[in-house]
Amino acid sequence: MNIEELKAKIRVIPDFPGPGISFKDITTLIKDGDAFRFAVRELANKVGNKDIELVVAPEARGFLVGIALAYELGLGFIPVRKKGKLPAGTYQGEYQLEYGTDVLEMHRDAVQPGQKVLVVDDLLATGGTVSAAIGLVERAGGIVEAVAFLIELTYLPGRKQLEKYDVVSLIKY
Amino acid sequence: MNIEELKAKIRVIPDFPGPGISFKDITTLIKDGDAFRFAVRELANKVGNKDIELVVAPEARGFLVGIALAYELGLGFIPVRKKGKLPAGTYQGEYQLEYGTDVLEMHRDAVQPGQKVLVVDDLLATGGTVSAAIGLVERAGGIVEAVAFLIELTYLPGRKQLEKYDVVSLIKY
Repeated sequence: MNIEELKAKIRVIPDFPGPGISFKDITTLIKDGDAFRFAVRELANKVGNKDIELVVAPEARGFLVGIALAYELGLGFIPVRKKGKLPAGTYQGEYQLEYGTDVLEMHRDAVQPGQKVLVVDDLLATGGTVSAAIGLVERAGGIVEAVAFLIELTYLPGRKQLEKYDVVSLIKY
Repeated sequence: MNIEELKAKIRVIPDFPGPGISFKDITTLIKDGDAFRFAVRELANKVGNKDIELVVAPEARGFLVGIALAYELGLGFIPVRKKGKLPAGTYQGEYQLEYGTDVLEMHRDAVQPGQKVLVVDDLLATGGTVSAAIGLVERAGGIVEAVAFLIELTYLPGRKQLEKYDVVSLIKY
């Protein structure tokens, strides 16, 4: 398996969820056990050796890539969730949607001050969701060592938005 | 590590999300990398050798256990999602909430007829969500070889609801 073969496993769906958006459907990749393991291992290799202590990812597709990467790296995993889903005290961060804003939350006791964190999402587009997740990690005192994506849309300004961070991605459009 | 030590990693939160509900918070378990790996491996051992071809789990907490288990078993993973989240053609199944109903979806081309499937969720309570997920797998022609949960609330009728299936769980309340 190589990255081009991996990319061919992704199903591209025009005009979803709205007109003009070319949706990258990763479900066709992760249903192939070999492709999925290859993707997670390649992404782990790209992140490299950074003394990372925890993996943080937003729901729901971010969980799929993030928890597999945490498992591969032998690390714990912290979920970032939509408002009202986490049962204990949280930090909250707003992020911009195409129309309006939404709120993400992370448990206050999830990341300890000084802990080195890998933030993960399935796809880097404008960087809005992942920036909100990074903001929550930093509010808890965590250090964002790297930010990893399965897919990067290089024609959108996500990487510019994250220029302070070490950003890695596996499949580029 | 043993199952009692694993159970001690779960945070029990009274009256969440509503009065009288004792919420089992698995985030405190999965943030501990060693505990999380132990849990996934023990659950994989409990499922045993069944020629399973795919793992299916509902969002969002089900993803956390399901994708890790798929990764450990070297299998592909199929997400079951809330209505409107999956981009291609889906089967839909209604399930009962405390008040009213909700709809779960699975891609029509996710499970092939005759494929042997492991259905996973974080917690077995009344069995409503997982029964909807099982229904979607069977509608696609899949064979549910086993149903696995990290946690089982034995004082609720979930196991009775699933009596046709091979049900395994790791941590019991």
